[in-house]
Amino acid sequence: MSTDATVPVRTYVEQNSAGFVEDLKDWLRIPSVSADPDRAGDVRESAEWLAAKLRATGFPTVEVWETAGGAGLPAVFAEWPSGDPDAPTVAVYGHHDVQPATPLELWENPPFDPSVRDGKLYARGASDDKGQLFFHVLGVRAHLAATGRSAPAVNLKLIAEGEEESGSPNFAQLLRERAERLACDVVVVSDTGMWDRATPSTVTGMRGMIGAQIDVHGPSGDVHSGSFGGAIPNPLTELVHLLAGLHDGDRRVTLPGFYDGIVELSDRERRLFAELPFDEAAWLRNAKSAAAVGEAGYSTLERVWARPTAEINGIWGGHTGPGPKTIIPAEAHAKLSFRLVAGQDPAQVRKALETWLAERMPAYLKYELTFEGGGVFPCLTPLDHPALQSVTRALGRAFAEDPDGEHRRILYTREGGSGPEADLQEVLDAPVVFLGTSLPDDGWHAPNEKVDVAGLLKGAEAAAYLWEDLAGNK
Amino acid sequence: MSTDATVPVRTYVEQNSAGFVEDLKDWLRIPSVSADPDRAGDVRESAEWLAAKLRATGFPTVEVWETAGGAGLPAVFAEWPSGDPDAPTVAVYGHHDVQPATPLELWENPPFDPSVRDGKLYARGASDDKGQLFFHVLGVRAHLAATGRSAPAVNLKLIAEGEEESGSPNFAQLLRERAERLACDVVVVSDTGMWDRATPSTVTGMRGMIGAQIDVHGPSGDVHSGSFGGAIPNPLTELVHLLAGLHDGDRRVTLPGFYDGIVELSDRERRLFAELPFDEAAWLRNAKSAAAVGEAGYSTLERVWARPTAEINGIWGGHTGPGPKTIIPAEAHAKLSFRLVAGQDPAQVRKALETWLAERMPAYLKYELTFEGGGVFPCLTPLDHPALQSVTRALGRAFAEDPDGEHRRILYTREGGSGPEADLQEVLDAPVVFLGTSLPDDGWHAPNEKVDVAGLLKGAEAAAYLWEDLAGNK
Repeated sequence: MSTDATVPVRTYVEQNSAGFVEDLKDWLRIPSVSADPDRAGDVRESAEWLAAKLRATGFPTVEVWETAGGAGLPAVFAEWPSGDPDAPTVAVYGHHDVQPATPLELWENPPFDPSVRDGKLYARGASDDKGQLFFHVLGVRAHLAATGRSAPAVNLKLIAEGEEESGSPNFAQLLRERAERLACDVVVVSDTGMWDRATPSTVTGMRGMIGAQIDVHGPSGDVHSGSFGGAIPNPLTELVHLLAGLHDGDRRVTLPGFYDGIVELSDRERRLFAELPFDEAAWLRNAKSAAAVGEAGYSTLERVWARPTAEINGIWGGHTGPGPKTIIPAEAHAKLSFRLVAGQDPAQVRKALETWLAERMPAYLKYELTFEGGGVFPCLTPLDHPALQSVTRALGRAFAEDPDGEHRRILYTREGGSGPEADLQEVLDAPVVFLGTSLPDDGWHAPNEKVDVAGLLKGAEAAAYLWEDLAGNK
Repeated sequence: MSTDATVPVRTYVEQNSAGFVEDLKDWLRIPSVSADPDRAGDVRESAEWLAAKLRATGFPTVEVWETAGGAGLPAVFAEWPSGDPDAPTVAVYGHHDVQPATPLELWENPPFDPSVRDGKLYARGASDDKGQLFFHVLGVRAHLAATGRSAPAVNLKLIAEGEEESGSPNFAQLLRERAERLACDVVVVSDTGMWDRATPSTVTGMRGMIGAQIDVHGPSGDVHSGSFGGAIPNPLTELVHLLAGLHDGDRRVTLPGFYDGIVELSDRERRLFAELPFDEAAWLRNAKSAAAVGEAGYSTLERVWARPTAEINGIWGGHTGPGPKTIIPAEAHAKLSFRLVAGQDPAQVRKALETWLAERMPAYLKYELTFEGGGVFPCLTPLDHPALQSVTRALGRAFAEDPDGEHRRILYTREGGSGPEADLQEVLDAPVVFLGTSLPDDGWHAPNEKVDVAGLLKGAEAAAYLWEDLAGNK
């Protein structure tokens, strides 16, 4: 299907950059804030805008998908078959909803009135995630222009969520309901970034999570600590004893079997992590903390990216107001969350916590252990996975001085947080790779969110190379 | 100064019981609720009522004393010198303010409209503490009638506080300011009770207390537990580790030197405690608890009466609302209180906690340790103290079938709580003994507070015997 009248990807992207930015600005003017019920109409308009644009780009199938929650925050699905029977199928994930823009007074330009200054596009959603989702529209056009194809070299699917900034409450169910339509060989997530402007990189995994709450019951009501103190169980004292046992002296989590079967860091990955220009002082400023501490034997980046944790997110019980109140309180509560890494299953950690607590809780105490849903799976694509190698080559080409010459070196990062990406891996049973070019200083969720226009163009370029690469044309 | 026209104490008390009850009902009609600013005038009226009654009883010196707080909740002081140069000086302590009476709808008779039913006088303050303070008025009259004296055999002082139910905020200062006027050889506190109706007893001591708050600082603001979890200190985790170390495996407090110099229970006292008809199941119902646990090697009563404790009264930090919030919180807080026994000094425990915390707090954490005032001293009068032996004999006589025949056996209890009694011991440098006949089911601080009229008459009788006994006439 190729013709001779091709234009190199980079050339095509550069020639079409002005229109790309103008289109993106149009989309950014729609305040698709999913957390604001008054903006539900805007989220829908954003979905319709994207759907129209995808149709105009050439996607033969474009649908607006309602989710189960009934909030009217639809997703957009698009599909463009390759036509080649052997072509792999790729599903691109991103989201078209945005964070709230408050506090408005801190913005230099109104958050939904996009403005380009010094090569940076300022608007809510410019980087997270409309800009990064939209570079795929330019990318697929560049891919067709460069290959002379009338359809992509891969079967290209795209799913743009409308509830990501509200915690993706209905996304896993949507995936399960539409799993057949979304079936693919690889998921390409465009909702993350690179290490920094000088260090192009890609994410290889995210941590999973499961949240729990422990409620310990002491006396059936608060009692006087003078009359009874020293002779009955104090649920706060019992709870701190339990929680203090969650970690051993090496700050490893003590749940039975917690580390069994986890994917350990390879020597190569540790070496590559160590090559990242990590500035611990700057990292600590972001962490608002004075010291880095954690599991013995691991660096700070290894701890947040590749090691599971048990964190206490909140504790409460007894008298918490001003002044003294000498009681033994009726109840003690704690909220916990466990970050999980590849090889861990939220359901197994749930069972381990149940067992651990049942074994350690004194028989004279009643308690409840509840979980925040079923948890989020971790996801990880190994460095030697062909799809990740394709992403690496595509990024290396996009960030190279000459895309057909020597490739730029691409490093690897991970995300310490947890997100719907894991559901993609889990439900679609496909490896997840990450193609994102945003930068740590883009100000996600903050006033004056921006994106480097050059970064979005590199993203479009990388996407175009990636479809070629995944189809076997390297 | 004695005459032949004497009347035995018991006879006098019985002959004057009707008038005693009518007078007490008059006083109970004054709603002297110290916690209610709108009742300040009633507290003052209560003081004036008592002052007038003491004057009418024969006390040559009666004064209404203002306290430093300016709330207009005065104390009453009265003094009646013996005239004998060798007579010991006794200071009786009680309080004329009362607890709030809410919830009013649970009272069978209005709380300030006293009612006698089945030999029990129902009213707020009937037992705590107007009734027990007022039996001294009848007691001293019985003492004079029985001895034929025109002045007591002891130099009798009486101090009736007006802020006890509000935590005695100004009492220690009042004592210090008036220490010379209140100077005495022994303090007789009439604000406690007996074991039960069938087991007359006296209190020998109360626990002291010091309260503290620990504030641990983590990140300078809440941070995301995905991005940073596992690599920075979590102040909640650090706090629970610290607090879990407050007790060892025997539930003994680990502060350095915490147990040094404390007055251990004697074998005799343990035997006498064990003679009390203690019903652990009933005690646990009062404690609203399913199990009795505490320091290894001690019984439940020993734990609450004679052993010091460290209790966590409250903890808070991080996310405490509904649902998950995956943060590492900026702060963690705990309120602690330590109950102290004889031989412990609140200031020493304060220093021990400071040292303990400084030694255990990791260097990377900032924290504050603050104390709730200077604490309350414990007080204890040993079983072999002559004043306590006098109280034992006086009670034994009052509760005997024939006051001049064989005495009733009197047992000993203590109070696990802490109160202004310790200030009396500390400031006046005098032993404190307890003469109270109220009962555990009198409903202190609860609706339908009552007192057995017969118990108040026994209190009056015991007071009369006590003044004789302390003066050397046994």
